[in-house]
Amino acid sequence: MSRANDPQIKSWIPTPENTDFPIQNIPFGVMQVDEDMFAAVSRVGKYVIDLTYLQDNGYFVGLNLPSGIFHKSYLNDFIALGKAQTQAVRERISDLLREGSSYTDLKEKTAYFMLPVEEVKMSMPVRIGDYTDFYSSREHATNVGTMFRDPANALLPNWLHLPVGYHGRASSIVISGTDIRRPSGQTKPPTAEKPTFGPTKQMDFELEMGFIVGKSNALGTPVSIDEAESHIFGMMLFNDWSARDIQAWEYVPLGPFLAKNFASTLSPWIVTMEALEPFRVAGPQQDPEVLPYLQTERAHNFDIQLQVDILLPNGQTSTVCKSNFKYMYWSMAQQLAHHTIGGCNMKVGDVCASGTISGPTPDSYGSMLELSWKGTKPLSMPDGTQRTFIEDGDTVILRGYAERDGVRIGFGECLGKVVG
Amino acid sequence: MSRANDPQIKSWIPTPENTDFPIQNIPFGVMQVDEDMFAAVSRVGKYVIDLTYLQDNGYFVGLNLPSGIFHKSYLNDFIALGKAQTQAVRERISDLLREGSSYTDLKEKTAYFMLPVEEVKMSMPVRIGDYTDFYSSREHATNVGTMFRDPANALLPNWLHLPVGYHGRASSIVISGTDIRRPSGQTKPPTAEKPTFGPTKQMDFELEMGFIVGKSNALGTPVSIDEAESHIFGMMLFNDWSARDIQAWEYVPLGPFLAKNFASTLSPWIVTMEALEPFRVAGPQQDPEVLPYLQTERAHNFDIQLQVDILLPNGQTSTVCKSNFKYMYWSMAQQLAHHTIGGCNMKVGDVCASGTISGPTPDSYGSMLELSWKGTKPLSMPDGTQRTFIEDGDTVILRGYAERDGVRIGFGECLGKVVG
Repeated sequence: MSRANDPQIKSWIPTPENTDFPIQNIPFGVMQVDEDMFAAVSRVGKYVIDLTYLQDNGYFVGLNLPSGIFHKSYLNDFIALGKAQTQAVRERISDLLREGSSYTDLKEKTAYFMLPVEEVKMSMPVRIGDYTDFYSSREHATNVGTMFRDPANALLPNWLHLPVGYHGRASSIVISGTDIRRPSGQTKPPTAEKPTFGPTKQMDFELEMGFIVGKSNALGTPVSIDEAESHIFGMMLFNDWSARDIQAWEYVPLGPFLAKNFASTLSPWIVTMEALEPFRVAGPQQDPEVLPYLQTERAHNFDIQLQVDILLPNGQTSTVCKSNFKYMYWSMAQQLAHHTIGGCNMKVGDVCASGTISGPTPDSYGSMLELSWKGTKPLSMPDGTQRTFIEDGDTVILRGYAERDGVRIGFGECLGKVVG
Repeated sequence: MSRANDPQIKSWIPTPENTDFPIQNIPFGVMQVDEDMFAAVSRVGKYVIDLTYLQDNGYFVGLNLPSGIFHKSYLNDFIALGKAQTQAVRERISDLLREGSSYTDLKEKTAYFMLPVEEVKMSMPVRIGDYTDFYSSREHATNVGTMFRDPANALLPNWLHLPVGYHGRASSIVISGTDIRRPSGQTKPPTAEKPTFGPTKQMDFELEMGFIVGKSNALGTPVSIDEAESHIFGMMLFNDWSARDIQAWEYVPLGPFLAKNFASTLSPWIVTMEALEPFRVAGPQQDPEVLPYLQTERAHNFDIQLQVDILLPNGQTSTVCKSNFKYMYWSMAQQLAHHTIGGCNMKVGDVCASGTISGPTPDSYGSMLELSWKGTKPLSMPDGTQRTFIEDGDTVILRGYAERDGVRIGFGECLGKVVG
């Protein structure tokens, strides 16, 4: 086990109970310093840790880091150094900030490298080359198939044999906190003769998690399932906003396009796979048996509790979904092995998202489409209104954390307000 | 009309008859000088024109170009200067290289800036952010619908109302000349009980053209159809390699994924929209009438003759398809207006491809799938063999040119050899 994961460690930085960011987490992100200046950062409790200061003042000596590696707009170059170096940095940050640290002088310098989180503007952590969205929750795929196709054959014939996925739009992925404009587009109710144009009437969120590719593979060279996890740097929360009425009209035969590409929201902190290692669990039994290139002995799922809140215009909040990443039928390792099996090259910083993460019970469905069952079961809100889909002025907040031995490794918030 | 388009101009550089690159063309590309060094170039006849030399030696004075703008790995920064400047460069190159040019000293310097094309290694002209593939040929969509669905209702209900498109994989787009490895993947014939794994047995090309986005739009800000052409820098040939058996098994419901993302081939020369201006033609009549955001008075199609050759392992060549870009039902302007109508942001260097460009007659179909009608009508090759799909060792070459008033504006070759 990583030394930094030891549940006994405490930080000398004041850390609230139940924080997503105890010293066992040490995620990576990027803060915007001014218009053209960015810096790589980590986080402990309510403080953002400026990694440029720590490197420039010799606290990473011995780790063989390129100078200026944290003075960048994105983490791609840092991530591309490889896990040996990025994890050495995580371990060093743990050494620097733990109680009993031998780097005692650092406590005199908190004004230089510790920033209160409310004073920091976070920006996109990686320059995303390509973005792929999977469809790996059996419960979600079953719900969608039941609603739109045939309840008796809700899963399509290929679904249990391969992790269905498709390419999404990378340019419109935005950082948590960015307002989301309700898109306009073509829709056609089944009873209408012609399509009409206007703002979507079925604005939805999708509760997803995404992983960041940490190691590139060359075109024509698949990544085997046993190597796959070594190609994953870390994970984030991901809201794959969807316009369901636009999607219904456009998606046959080539898949969703404008229904998705107006925006997706990414949480700002990349939690490394090493921090998540204690939360590894077996996934659902796969039956029928998958083809050899998707087979593995190892437990490839992770027990991460997920929650979706809607923050209403009046300030009240409603928790509409509690789910868990462990429900995923197809693991990240299987997704990556499948994605590359034909030779597709993945690059450091690429994002693969899970698809909507629905659980087995109706309160664990990861989209309004499923929660309101296609609009037929409106959700009651604390302000007395009802929701079938997301209204202008609503803010959708995804949260997630893993917890064990009194240590919570969390992801913070993935937040977006819908505006008209 | 652009001065550089004047059919009367000749270059003092020896230019073969029927070249794709008369002085009226002046395309842009990037050559690889050594491992880490690249330079922006143009082309006249059989010579590549080094734009770094011309700028560094004052031949672009007065055009207000940033220094070093051509000393880059990609043309993105040059293109982002905007059409006023990029077209001023095209006009200046025309002025420099035409017969009767006042820049007489340049003829003494040909050894410095003119490189025989066979000595030059071209590389990817743009850093592609996102890649979108449309499906805009009515003949192609009709053929596919007839083969796989219902001949009586070959076009899906949405097809005549919107330019169907989907997101593709940007990382695996390669420059002409790159070998294409036959991908492996899951396939399941309808009669089989379970899928099996192995190399695709239905390797196909798709005859397409792509356009390069020349002007970014902000997230949430659609590009109107009348502005759309001002957001297009130029065009190239595009081979969207496809594995049909993998596609058939995977593509429902989210669209093609591994069937396409193993490779696409781009031709190296970007022909600007200004060079193609003389070849503007009206497109097919659109009936039913399209929604207002897709309506335009202007002729938005281009008369570009297209051809696909298969170069056999023994060196013989077979022309398998002759088509034309003017057959496209949906124009590039409509594609771009549709792509952004929900607010999706396009960035300079993004690629949008047309989808397979099939014409009305069986010898104008732009894929082996259609030419061999799903494998039922093998094509006879000059070496005595037959083809239903592409075999290992076959080289597929796309070519295209527009011609009028004795001037041919061509695209060169888009070439890829399939290897096992």
